[in-house]
Amino acid sequence: MSNEDHVGRRGLMLALSSPSGAGKTTLSRMLLESDGMITMSVSATTRRPRPGEIEGRDYYFVSTEDFGLMRNRGEFLESAKVFDNYYGTPKAPVEQALAQGRDVLFDIDWQGTQQIDEVAHEDLVKVFVLPPSAQDLERRLKTRAQDSADVVASRMAKASDEISHYQEYDYIIINDDIDQAFIELRSILQAERLRRRRLIGLSNFVKQLRETL
Amino acid sequence: MSNEDHVGRRGLMLALSSPSGAGKTTLSRMLLESDGMITMSVSATTRRPRPGEIEGRDYYFVSTEDFGLMRNRGEFLESAKVFDNYYGTPKAPVEQALAQGRDVLFDIDWQGTQQIDEVAHEDLVKVFVLPPSAQDLERRLKTRAQDSADVVASRMAKASDEISHYQEYDYIIINDDIDQAFIELRSILQAERLRRRRLIGLSNFVKQLRETL
Repeated sequence: MSNEDHVGRRGLMLALSSPSGAGKTTLSRMLLESDGMITMSVSATTRRPRPGEIEGRDYYFVSTEDFGLMRNRGEFLESAKVFDNYYGTPKAPVEQALAQGRDVLFDIDWQGTQQIDEVAHEDLVKVFVLPPSAQDLERRLKTRAQDSADVVASRMAKASDEISHYQEYDYIIINDDIDQAFIELRSILQAERLRRRRLIGLSNFVKQLRETL
Repeated sequence: MSNEDHVGRRGLMLALSSPSGAGKTTLSRMLLESDGMITMSVSATTRRPRPGEIEGRDYYFVSTEDFGLMRNRGEFLESAKVFDNYYGTPKAPVEQALAQGRDVLFDIDWQGTQQIDEVAHEDLVKVFVLPPSAQDLERRLKTRAQDSADVVASRMAKASDEISHYQEYDYIIINDDIDQAFIELRSILQAERLRRRRLIGLSNFVKQLRETL
């Protein structure tokens, strides 16, 4: 019997942030499709379900009153108000995943990342995705926004704000090529899974090794 | 022109430690053969060259007097006495490699790792390789040692001492399968290369991005 069976690990939270259009959503999808040990974080929200959205998969749909109660009880890892709706990440399902050695992916902005960092620094891995050049970012923002000039301007202001927080992240991926960026993201996840402090049962395992010698 | 050309990185030092027989030497060789950006650290030593050993590739061969002078001038990252000979890692070639964005691999014990950590913590990535089980370790130590019982006993004592320092390392690789262990080691190297603090020119790059917005 191998003793390795007795070494497990605590899951981690992978926060992926980037300005709009830098490829964060594509990278998230690629990671979720290729890796069975990581799942997307599910937020609670006070906004109404859209057609096709499924409770517990896309969101936990809650009333404004319940959201307020949950927040007051400290049941969110992070929360924010966007326009007239509240969004928040319930702690319980994330903690359950981590305790079972599964990882949780957060497609999240710098403010959400900061909030999680304050309460769960040791479990959090922070990755920031940058576009390869200013020209590229401009092109992507303009191509994507089939919207009014106001929406484009607002999106660009938000992108600039987001980028200004890159220094709060552990790792930087410059997304010049989506396949290369994905390899890099996967390396970060694989490496962080090997961090000594996430391993469970290691001291007993080492004790057994030393008793043999 | 892509701005990415202007983002470089500082190299890192990868310290690989393990008890004798856990696969560290094989993993080092695999990494050096597959990755052109990392080279093996070359030690200075006072022992005489053996047939086939090349100055500057295998060792820097120095006199005991010169070794003492270098040590007094603080020119070693780490040094140790083994039996009647001195060994040490000269700082200058390592610093030159790091400044050029190349990485340096150290096949080193916990004492050397501790010494480097004291002077170059930010550049150092510490990986500890463990055997998959006590039985496996015992088998490997006995198979390798075509030596006297004394040599085997001494090797086992050293292995036990080495293992007791696993907590000083950032990452743990349990070498159950050499190919899987190698994938893990490579992931750690690839991920650590993406650490924000190693990147050079990032603040200018981000400044340019934001000016576009």
